[in-house]
Amino acid sequence: MTMVPYRVVVHVDEMACWPLALTNLRNLLNDVGRESLRAELVANGPAVAFYADLPETVEKFPSSWQEGFYRELIGEMSGLHSQNVQFIACANALRANHLDPARLLPLVQVVPAGITEIVRKQHEGYAYVKP
Amino acid sequence: MTMVPYRVVVHVDEMACWPLALTNLRNLLNDVGRESLRAELVANGPAVAFYADLPETVEKFPSSWQEGFYRELIGEMSGLHSQNVQFIACANALRANHLDPARLLPLVQVVPAGITEIVRKQHEGYAYVKP
Amino acid sequence: MTMVPYRVVVHVDEMACWPLALTNLRNLLNDVGRESLRAELVANGPAVAFYADLPETVEKFPSSWQEGFYRELIGEMSGLHSQNVQFIACANALRANHLDPARLLPLVQVVPAGITEIVRKQHEGYAYVKP
Repeated sequence: MTMVPYRVVVHVDEMACWPLALTNLRNLLNDVGRESLRAELVANGPAVAFYADLPETVEKFPSSWQEGFYRELIGEMSGLHSQNVQFIACANALRANHLDPARLLPLVQVVPAGITEIVRKQHEGYAYVKP
Repeated sequence: MTMVPYRVVVHVDEMACWPLALTNLRNLLNDVGRESLRAELVANGPAVAFYADLPETVEKFPSSWQEGFYRELIGEMSGLHSQNVQFIACANALRANHLDPARLLPLVQVVPAGITEIVRKQHEGYAYVKP
Repeated sequence: MTMVPYRVVVHVDEMACWPLALTNLRNLLNDVGRESLRAELVANGPAVAFYADLPETVEKFPSSWQEGFYRELIGEMSGLHSQNVQFIACANALRANHLDPARLLPLVQVVPAGITEIVRKQHEGYAYVKP
């Protein structure tokens, strides 16, 4: 079995870290190419609110995010997803933040515990990055 | 030798990151079970003040921590420790923060350099998580 | 081939994290010794401004950094570099922050994408630390 050359799990637990996390993934994808990359982003903690495209979550966004900026980030996330980057949410974090998994953006995949996913991926040979 | 399926070193260097770090460990423990987990938390930098159960360290706590919250966190740490999660302090960080190792909570284990412990554990096959 | 016992890539993407990152590297070096260590620090995001020894970047520094503190940190970085710690800048981040690679401190090495360097090093067996 030939292993894909670059494998990474990106961890986001604060809303403010989303822009840099997406930029990191974009730069990695542009640098090594889609065929050479297995990448996933695991969000837990308060950062899961990013996945809930709901008016009531906007208040959880950093005050420095200007109107339209969130839309740009969501667009960037969709673009990365269309190039095979996986986006994952922690079910524990959704519960703690009173977010209904059924109302997340459709591209998001929910796992029981984000932390387990992060640990398992590293055991499978993925690098870890915390932007 | 059969290896324990999940192995993780959790790194905390800011006081504000303690709550999320403990939550991550709790969720991991609940998800995979005690028998499948080797976990330790290494604190260095200003985060080591959390281990010193002393009135004079309270001023180092984030202002958002309401009274009683620190006690809850200490209770949670004790609970995790009783389920085999190790809690480690960096001796360099204790010195830099003028904390006497002899006055730390008894469950805490001191290592000469927290960073060395973090690197060594990864070389031994532990995953790394920085909440 | 005998592998060097300790190998680490330290990731810095916020200016405020530089002091702790340099302290971590110093403590690691003092603890395990130069001959036992391969270490590099990869800066991306806004943290790359640290490498540009220019008056116009000073405004990007944390307001808590007192005059002279940046000079001390640069001195510490030079000392670590003289003991074989590598300091790396992400070209994408330099562009995004309008910094000319030609004007960086001479000890800095530029790579096309810092994130790729971080992932590659982990695949080569380096530990990852995010202070």
